[in-house]
Amino acid sequence: MRGFRTDLAMECITEENVHIEGVQVNTHQIGDIKHTRIRIDSESAAEALKRKCGQYITVEYPDLPRYDTEKKKLLVKLIAQAVRTLLPEEGDILVVGLGNRNVTADALGTRVVERLLVTRHLRQAMADELRTKLRGVSAIAPGVLGLTGIETAELARGLVAHVKPAAVIAIDALAAFESERICTTIQITDTGIEPGSGVGNHRLGLTAETLGVRVIAVGVPMVVYASTIARDAMARLINEYGLFEPGHEEATEQLLRQVSEGFLGDMVVTPREIDELVLNVADLLSDGINQALQPAIDTDTLHTYMH
Amino acid sequence: MRGFRTDLAMECITEENVHIEGVQVNTHQIGDIKHTRIRIDSESAAEALKRKCGQYITVEYPDLPRYDTEKKKLLVKLIAQAVRTLLPEEGDILVVGLGNRNVTADALGTRVVERLLVTRHLRQAMADELRTKLRGVSAIAPGVLGLTGIETAELARGLVAHVKPAAVIAIDALAAFESERICTTIQITDTGIEPGSGVGNHRLGLTAETLGVRVIAVGVPMVVYASTIARDAMARLINEYGLFEPGHEEATEQLLRQVSEGFLGDMVVTPREIDELVLNVADLLSDGINQALQPAIDTDTLHTYMH
Amino acid sequence: MRGFRTDLAMECITEENVHIEGVQVNTHQIGDIKHTRIRIDSESAAEALKRKCGQYITVEYPDLPRYDTEKKKLLVKLIAQAVRTLLPEEGDILVVGLGNRNVTADALGTRVVERLLVTRHLRQAMADELRTKLRGVSAIAPGVLGLTGIETAELARGLVAHVKPAAVIAIDALAAFESERICTTIQITDTGIEPGSGVGNHRLGLTAETLGVRVIAVGVPMVVYASTIARDAMARLINEYGLFEPGHEEATEQLLRQVSEGFLGDMVVTPREIDELVLNVADLLSDGINQALQPAIDTDTLHTYMH
Amino acid sequence: MRGFRTDLAMECITEENVHIEGVQVNTHQIGDIKHTRIRIDSESAAEALKRKCGQYITVEYPDLPRYDTEKKKLLVKLIAQAVRTLLPEEGDILVVGLGNRNVTADALGTRVVERLLVTRHLRQAMADELRTKLRGVSAIAPGVLGLTGIETAELARGLVAHVKPAAVIAIDALAAFESERICTTIQITDTGIEPGSGVGNHRLGLTAETLGVRVIAVGVPMVVYASTIARDAMARLINEYGLFEPGHEEATEQLLRQVSEGFLGDMVVTPREIDELVLNVADLLSDGINQALQPAIDTDTLHTYMH
Repeated sequence: MRGFRTDLAMECITEENVHIEGVQVNTHQIGDIKHTRIRIDSESAAEALKRKCGQYITVEYPDLPRYDTEKKKLLVKLIAQAVRTLLPEEGDILVVGLGNRNVTADALGTRVVERLLVTRHLRQAMADELRTKLRGVSAIAPGVLGLTGIETAELARGLVAHVKPAAVIAIDALAAFESERICTTIQITDTGIEPGSGVGNHRLGLTAETLGVRVIAVGVPMVVYASTIARDAMARLINEYGLFEPGHEEATEQLLRQVSEGFLGDMVVTPREIDELVLNVADLLSDGINQALQPAIDTDTLHTYMH
Repeated sequence: MRGFRTDLAMECITEENVHIEGVQVNTHQIGDIKHTRIRIDSESAAEALKRKCGQYITVEYPDLPRYDTEKKKLLVKLIAQAVRTLLPEEGDILVVGLGNRNVTADALGTRVVERLLVTRHLRQAMADELRTKLRGVSAIAPGVLGLTGIETAELARGLVAHVKPAAVIAIDALAAFESERICTTIQITDTGIEPGSGVGNHRLGLTAETLGVRVIAVGVPMVVYASTIARDAMARLINEYGLFEPGHEEATEQLLRQVSEGFLGDMVVTPREIDELVLNVADLLSDGINQALQPAIDTDTLHTYMH
Repeated sequence: MRGFRTDLAMECITEENVHIEGVQVNTHQIGDIKHTRIRIDSESAAEALKRKCGQYITVEYPDLPRYDTEKKKLLVKLIAQAVRTLLPEEGDILVVGLGNRNVTADALGTRVVERLLVTRHLRQAMADELRTKLRGVSAIAPGVLGLTGIETAELARGLVAHVKPAAVIAIDALAAFESERICTTIQITDTGIEPGSGVGNHRLGLTAETLGVRVIAVGVPMVVYASTIARDAMARLINEYGLFEPGHEEATEQLLRQVSEGFLGDMVVTPREIDELVLNVADLLSDGINQALQPAIDTDTLHTYMH
Repeated sequence: MRGFRTDLAMECITEENVHIEGVQVNTHQIGDIKHTRIRIDSESAAEALKRKCGQYITVEYPDLPRYDTEKKKLLVKLIAQAVRTLLPEEGDILVVGLGNRNVTADALGTRVVERLLVTRHLRQAMADELRTKLRGVSAIAPGVLGLTGIETAELARGLVAHVKPAAVIAIDALAAFESERICTTIQITDTGIEPGSGVGNHRLGLTAETLGVRVIAVGVPMVVYASTIARDAMARLINEYGLFEPGHEEATEQLLRQVSEGFLGDMVVTPREIDELVLNVADLLSDGINQALQPAIDTDTLHTYMH
């Protein structure tokens, strides 16, 4: 059953491959929030799972974009912890929001960057005491290749050379395999962003190899490809009727290919209320990242600074 | 194969029911634009097709939201003609944009209303000669029930009582069965808008019965329900393997129901670039409706008035 | 020094007219927030102050649109108290947001309405116990005459006839005389909205006379007319040099008129960051109005309902 | 009468300084459009006018933001000609939109960049014949220092080093001295953008010195500072009464300073309908710049490419 597209490492872990050497999966439940840490250590495991070596932390909560005040605090804390675990302890951070602000399902990166506490330009003017408490943060959401003529990765490389951050945080809208994951699962990883991933399908990745510094990627699925939904529906039927028995295999595979490559093209599946959900998720992520970057400042004070 | 949802009359016409008494379908091709006029005359035909008696005009063009200047002129002319055919020859017109401006796929009605030439308030101040040339037009996009607490149909009824138009034009984003129809098919009908139709699923319809005046509905599909895509994919497989043979029927139907009622919920399928497509389609519709309402004024002059 | 335009009653009170019979002014200070209640009781006082008889409550805080969490709570409470004082104790409420959502300085009404907890359509489905706790609220921001062809007051009258609220709350962006008042002063009054007031200059007022029910108006200055600034600058100079001495009066008045009617036209003065300030003020007002309308529900729960 | 702020070279030319050596002013009228070319050749002239040496072309039309179709064509042609005169004949171009997209009066640069035909990424895939006809264009609107932590000039320098354009076009909202100039005067200059200019007051300039390539700046006034309006009103009065006579000078100057530095702060004067005007002006500028950059392609075809 190949051909399903997902940017979530956790959707690549199955009952069969979870026990491969070089893969560690630790899950624990915090009330109705599920916290998973996947570590891929060996190249052979990476190849089997089709994911890069590194750490993948996911925070799942079915009602994530409809959080109440208390749940929000907890989710923000979990996001902040995950980001902080993967960040270098010191040094400036450059945040890059990927995606197209004019395409609702692809605008997550832009919306998060708009809500960040940016401090790099303030630090020169600060008293020494405050400056040591405040991490230097710069942030940009440059827009997609089709609108700028410049790959986001090229642009980020230029900025890294100039701003010289200790690490980059890249934020992007993801595609998932299961529609239940849309706006309910947050993935934080130190493997960066791969070429061809994200809703907008980046040509070049943002990784330690392309940028020369560690890249923490933070993402949330915003779509499932329509062809994935169609293939999944067919797969359920095929399992039910055992259509992959000898003789049927070839014809079935052809039908599946026809569906996924054919009439559904680049169509995506989203919740109808995606416009609102993106904003709610962006609020969570930005609060979490702000808290990770400025642990010495409480959230209320952060909000006051941002006016 | 029940359970597919569509707001397009043309998707209810099949090889089997096209020859029912009381249904007339006239199609002609204008270059690569397809123009269809469906007339449902008898109650039995209406019941068989699950559509109200009346006229349904569709204009189809596969590249509709990416028109060039020349094609735009032609499309606008066809929309204007269709609207004019269904409108009363004289009297003020009230245009109601349905849907939620904050939900991209549901914002078509709002976007069209924003681009209309509104004249009702200007006519008192005009010279007699100009006033006879200008039709009185008022327009409102009140927002959905969840945001106002008032059904759009209730609100429209109150306005009709006050403004006393000769007819209402209602504009809405539709749902289709086939994903190829998204942003490529325009439906113009004198049957109004049915309860439960549109992307936003109106509870009350806007029809001659509820409003007391003729209601012309103009709509374009913006989504296909994800469950429709899944059912369609399964149906292709079922046809291929003859799974509806005796004995399989019950189980298959159950699987289909599971897919469409189950995990996909209210998920919708749209093109990734839906945000831009909605604006392009709104431009076409508003130009067409403006031209239908003010035939004595050419489009350039219309645009100048609208500043 | 005639010719200054203001929608704030408090700017009409001067050292000379504060002691007129029929005017009561009570001011008290709550930390750095100033709370004023003006009551105009007699027609002669109304005429002298050029304001209608009724109550005018103002809440002033110089850093209003840059509130921190604690100050926000206090401001919201004061707004809620003022609105509740003027509202009837029982019955449904219709909220009308005035102004043009496409004009930043005139969009306050729209932005507040977007953030209200609307309940009218929910109450039928509720358990009796909850329904008694929840006031029925409907809300609309219909857009300005130039975009709809219908006066907001006409439209509101139609809605009042249909929805039958116990009172209307009308929200609008105001014009002030002093630029320091922009986004720092909230006025809440039971006199409704007068014709010609607001940034958008309504032709018809929304008052108990036009709507048939009590109208509470809530507004915040968003602009000062440029001609007011120019006149004020000139007035300072004139005072300094005593130019209103006999002989100069006529010429000076002519110069003032030239400035205010002439080259500055409809230009307005706003802070550069008005786009952000409008949203912050809308947040405050909507929280305050929501709390006034639903005193049985705390703010966090309100926010949860609104998703 | 010092202290008026303007970004327009033409507002620095007075009857007294127009005949200074090193200044050439050529004006001609095209119907109701006024076209002015100012050339400042000597350092002494530059100092007297407080403008850099170089060329300044202005296109003035009182109804500029309310153009009809025919006038638009002419204005676009004049803008295109002016830009082409100042551009190098060959080589890629990088367009930088300055300002803050979230501040209406400061969003012009962003709005223009959104409407540009970006080609740099397309040229590799093109047939040789088309490639020679198409100039390579990249474009970015990075956002202001307060939101990114990075000066636009720093960022542009990094991009120039990477993209290696033959020239930069920088687009910005300007401040004028006379309110009649808002949205009616277009300035195109080869002197770049100075520190402290623009509505957003850039700290670092974008000039040949800072970027290492020629910088063409295109700008339109969007605001007048409120203090300028106040000073101007006072100045008219002072002229009328001869208040600058001996003895008065000091006191008057003090009053003027008080007005401009004091209570009006950063307040700006704009037309009420600025939101719409910015979009109309952005349409004109982007059409003009697109035509200047791609003279081999007609405007309709350009629009088709941009979908």
